[in-house]
Amino acid sequence: MRVKATVAYDGGGFHGFAINPGVRTVAGEITEALSKVSGADVRIMCAGRTDKGVHGVGQVISFDVSGDVDLVRLTRSVNLMCGPDIVLRDVTTAPPNFDARFSAVWRRYRYRVLALPIADPLLRSMAWHVPEPLDIAVMNHSAAQLLGTHDFSSFCRRPKVAVGEPEASLVRTVLDAEWRDHNESMIEFWIRATSFCHQMVRSIVGTAVDIGTGRLDESMIEILAAKDRLRAGRVAPPEGLTLFDVGY
Amino acid sequence: MRVKATVAYDGGGFHGFAINPGVRTVAGEITEALSKVSGADVRIMCAGRTDKGVHGVGQVISFDVSGDVDLVRLTRSVNLMCGPDIVLRDVTTAPPNFDARFSAVWRRYRYRVLALPIADPLLRSMAWHVPEPLDIAVMNHSAAQLLGTHDFSSFCRRPKVAVGEPEASLVRTVLDAEWRDHNESMIEFWIRATSFCHQMVRSIVGTAVDIGTGRLDESMIEILAAKDRLRAGRVAPPEGLTLFDVGY
Repeated sequence: MRVKATVAYDGGGFHGFAINPGVRTVAGEITEALSKVSGADVRIMCAGRTDKGVHGVGQVISFDVSGDVDLVRLTRSVNLMCGPDIVLRDVTTAPPNFDARFSAVWRRYRYRVLALPIADPLLRSMAWHVPEPLDIAVMNHSAAQLLGTHDFSSFCRRPKVAVGEPEASLVRTVLDAEWRDHNESMIEFWIRATSFCHQMVRSIVGTAVDIGTGRLDESMIEILAAKDRLRAGRVAPPEGLTLFDVGY
Repeated sequence: MRVKATVAYDGGGFHGFAINPGVRTVAGEITEALSKVSGADVRIMCAGRTDKGVHGVGQVISFDVSGDVDLVRLTRSVNLMCGPDIVLRDVTTAPPNFDARFSAVWRRYRYRVLALPIADPLLRSMAWHVPEPLDIAVMNHSAAQLLGTHDFSSFCRRPKVAVGEPEASLVRTVLDAEWRDHNESMIEFWIRATSFCHQMVRSIVGTAVDIGTGRLDESMIEILAAKDRLRAGRVAPPEGLTLFDVGY
């Protein structure tokens, strides 16, 4: 039977989500545990392959197990084997054609910036510390310019393709993008899109922060129109980023 | 000159605050950095000697350096040497009789409980995960019973004294004690007292949670009156606890 599960993880201890022989990855740990518990090789699909150090709150995976597997026991066993930095929840049966990656209609990410003159040791694993003052109004003006369908070449690492093969499209559709003052010092960027290309959120956040501090004197829409990665700002560090939830 | 500084730290990587040869401690790291930067042996006093794994937001320390030391440079150097899990801030000169420990008139601690059926990997280093439902009203009723001056023998690890010496008093004065619903799942206990004895906050929190889940069928005031450590509930784990600020 096909199974759908939500996965939360602290990305700090992993070399990303995707399986990568020789290093600890989220999918590697889950696949190993699922295979042990179910007694058969399990392969998982995911809604978003997060990079090294990026967190998950509502990552979604799908996989197949034989019909006599008790999902409550399976979940408990996998959580005992993978915890405490990975937790499976809402593990349910799904229609046979459900695919965590191809059935997803949107993904939402949250990026946290700690806007304080001096760093906070307790928050260093979950937020990017930016000591310069930030102009949130300007950053929200920039965020609004991302809405809709655009070629995000300025904000994405272009995937390698074999000689003679066509380049992958970096056209994506952004549904929501907003900076929120969570409290005095913790600022959050929320972005929802049909899908994301590689490093897109971190590159947008780094650029928005560079605009918000005055370090970059171009508008988001000019950078977007340039379709040139060299025009964008910094790539924000991974610890501020979380794959928050996925729509189906 | 006498210097006063506020210290924030992520307790996860330390064997407590106090210097302890052979293990990494907060005071050990700061003392080493201060001594290197100022070129003389520095000894520090602190407002509260937090245990292994306990965090600091507003820990206060005092120490002496020679009068020609530039405090802005000193702070920057110490933060470069001790960071990222220790940060010094608000480093200022203080009156010669100022002592971070003996001048303090109150200390405030925050304890975070994550009240969710399933753990959250991202919060595991800063909150105690309690999967059972908690009755906050009952816990706040318990908290109110702690206010005022009491003998906290039921909630403290009694310090060892030499044969023939008098036992240390465990009488303390609690100024505020309250449970707050930070959001749906994160619950915070805030307690302010003139001073605390060893493991007092964690023992009170563990007992309050045991009362709040129904595991313990005694009231806080009965346990307090018994002056018997065996009557209290569990000792809550250190990762939820933070020395938040200190009054002078």
